[in-house]
Amino acid sequence: MTVEFLKEVKGKYWPDDHDRHLIDIVLPKLMSKINTYIDEHKLEATPMLVGSIAKGTYLHNPDADIFILFDKGMKKERMGEIAVDMGKTVLDHSTVSYAEHPYSKGEYENLKTDIVPAYKISHGSEIISAVDRTPFHTEFVKNSVNEDILEDIRLIKAFSKGIGVYGSDSRVKGFSGYLLELMVIYYGGFLKVLKNASNWKRGIRVEMVPSAKDFDNPLVWIDPVDNGRNVASALSTDNFYLFISACKHYLEKPKKEFFLPRPHDPLNFEQIKRAFEHRRTHAVAVSIDRPDLVDDILYPQMDKALKSIEIGLKSSDFTVYRSIHHAGEKLTFLLEVDQIVLPKVQVHEGPPANHPNSKDFIKRWTNSVETFSKPYLYNSRWQVDVCRKYSTIQEFLQEQIPNMSLGKNLDLLMENG
Amino acid sequence: MTVEFLKEVKGKYWPDDHDRHLIDIVLPKLMSKINTYIDEHKLEATPMLVGSIAKGTYLHNPDADIFILFDKGMKKERMGEIAVDMGKTVLDHSTVSYAEHPYSKGEYENLKTDIVPAYKISHGSEIISAVDRTPFHTEFVKNSVNEDILEDIRLIKAFSKGIGVYGSDSRVKGFSGYLLELMVIYYGGFLKVLKNASNWKRGIRVEMVPSAKDFDNPLVWIDPVDNGRNVASALSTDNFYLFISACKHYLEKPKKEFFLPRPHDPLNFEQIKRAFEHRRTHAVAVSIDRPDLVDDILYPQMDKALKSIEIGLKSSDFTVYRSIHHAGEKLTFLLEVDQIVLPKVQVHEGPPANHPNSKDFIKRWTNSVETFSKPYLYNSRWQVDVCRKYSTIQEFLQEQIPNMSLGKNLDLLMENG
Repeated sequence: MTVEFLKEVKGKYWPDDHDRHLIDIVLPKLMSKINTYIDEHKLEATPMLVGSIAKGTYLHNPDADIFILFDKGMKKERMGEIAVDMGKTVLDHSTVSYAEHPYSKGEYENLKTDIVPAYKISHGSEIISAVDRTPFHTEFVKNSVNEDILEDIRLIKAFSKGIGVYGSDSRVKGFSGYLLELMVIYYGGFLKVLKNASNWKRGIRVEMVPSAKDFDNPLVWIDPVDNGRNVASALSTDNFYLFISACKHYLEKPKKEFFLPRPHDPLNFEQIKRAFEHRRTHAVAVSIDRPDLVDDILYPQMDKALKSIEIGLKSSDFTVYRSIHHAGEKLTFLLEVDQIVLPKVQVHEGPPANHPNSKDFIKRWTNSVETFSKPYLYNSRWQVDVCRKYSTIQEFLQEQIPNMSLGKNLDLLMENG
Repeated sequence: MTVEFLKEVKGKYWPDDHDRHLIDIVLPKLMSKINTYIDEHKLEATPMLVGSIAKGTYLHNPDADIFILFDKGMKKERMGEIAVDMGKTVLDHSTVSYAEHPYSKGEYENLKTDIVPAYKISHGSEIISAVDRTPFHTEFVKNSVNEDILEDIRLIKAFSKGIGVYGSDSRVKGFSGYLLELMVIYYGGFLKVLKNASNWKRGIRVEMVPSAKDFDNPLVWIDPVDNGRNVASALSTDNFYLFISACKHYLEKPKKEFFLPRPHDPLNFEQIKRAFEHRRTHAVAVSIDRPDLVDDILYPQMDKALKSIEIGLKSSDFTVYRSIHHAGEKLTFLLEVDQIVLPKVQVHEGPPANHPNSKDFIKRWTNSVETFSKPYLYNSRWQVDVCRKYSTIQEFLQEQIPNMSLGKNLDLLMENG
């Protein structure tokens, strides 16, 4: 790795003076305001800084993750209300987001901040809500890192961002920051992660603590703070393989493009149109109203919907080249297909010429309303030309999408839309 | 079989008074003219009436097949010249046709007549030219029929005409008159043929005389006058099965439509166009100059050419619904296809994500001129979008047809055409 390109990587990803100012000066002020809020409201709650800032593994432009820990007796609804009100009070501006319960998302003197309510538990396996484990993750990493591997953690995060697999949310389906930290801690450094990952096979299992639980994921990385959990459960198979492939190629020929891919400007409408004309394929877009769901519920539903559309189109003889979805103001499904119009007829193959069923086949299809031209012998088989159920993409989408299993919320919207 | 519909069948297919006049009055005059010609030219030749008129198995509007038998010492070229000159002299008008050697085709007082030169041999297995066997066929049938089965022979011929499988020429690929005669003689009658044929399986073998020779045909019917020959060698598999199927259906429910199918007028151009529009398929026609070949050589070449075009189109992702050829002034290949334009790109599947060959695949396709978009992971495999070789039917036909094995004569014509 030449010093030159490392400098560029660091310049883009490493924390700068402004980040340090936010963490050293702004964050303590925010913590103090939160404590004041707790005192004034006489709450039994402890604020705790978690996540990459707490662990010292943060990159440029980090978020502050502040957990408000409550006793187990606290009602979930109340915790959510407190976190939302706290956000409104202590942050410069905040909005309400939803995971298992509501939390506050906002900014305090330019420091992006999440204020998240959680239960105070004594071990990662005792969690009540999904986020309760996070403080243990933070502790585990804090106790396992030193200055040397801190650099390597930043490198693997930068590498994962560069190749597009950073983040375990449902949209990216990649590697969480915590998983990357564990990988560097376990293997002992950036290059050692790359060397080991180069040899991963689908189903590779790493137990930092023993675990008897089975997982059906491409990568199984047992959570050292909860051996009943796979840290890599969100990782998609394609991203798993993409990571392996990138590791191999990087080791063979390190290039800054792994960290700093060439930027490409989004195409405008005219350019997209020309691209499809050039490929002589067809773009089909389906847009529906966006339901009020958090990303971790919305994206799996969109995945499922897109898969249903693809399978349906394929069984109707349309070839889908690629497909993506996008959740903006509307939910959009974009598919690249070979044709938007097919013949109205299709060949329906019958039994071999002399088969006992031939007679039934001929009888059945001679008088069927679906028959386009009567049964005939072709290459020693009976065949009949029948009407195709969907001979345009539009027919298919209009009739099939409302019936598809798109998840409860989408179904309804398609029917109305 | 009701008398009513039998009357209609007979009305269409049975010889009428005009036919009998031609055979009883006109034919003897013609034979006498031929004998006069032979005498005047001092030829060592014997005229012989062969075929269905000689056998008494003829239908309405029969051809007179007159063979001129020469000694074995005669040169083939000379025999042809004599037959042609005889035709010109004795017939009202005649043209030259070609089988293994030239023969005369024409009319004498409205009696359609073929004058065919052949060798006089003593047994069917001694043939020198392909037609030499015919007199033996005529003799065999003449000696085997009686008034009773004569009716049944006419019925099976009418039935075969009705279902479209009458004729052993390369265009029809069906049942010759001689084969149908043998079937009635062997099985004992029209209905007995139908009953037996209903149970035929592909490869069924009938030996009216013992034969040790193997044949690879759907129906093997050993020629009683030459046990080295299969009388059914020209029968296509589809016609074999079509015949079986028709026999089964007729036995279950006899209908006049088997003999007298509902007539359908040929469609005009506008109607054809509308039919394709209605089916939303595309018609593609290729026309080339007609080479100077007899049908029995031309049709197999056209079959082969059409097969090549179909296979090529299929491997280029076009779906051929049906195809036919027609030999008129030009040779025409007509195909019904699903699309005439495909996307310019196609997905080229690479190795599974983690396969040792992945690296080579990525390298090979990242820099190839054929690459449309760089390799990417999709469903755990590497893929790349590459340029399609032929994305229109026209491109395919223009580039591929001259390279195809269409038989010697067609190749040349395609190159020039």
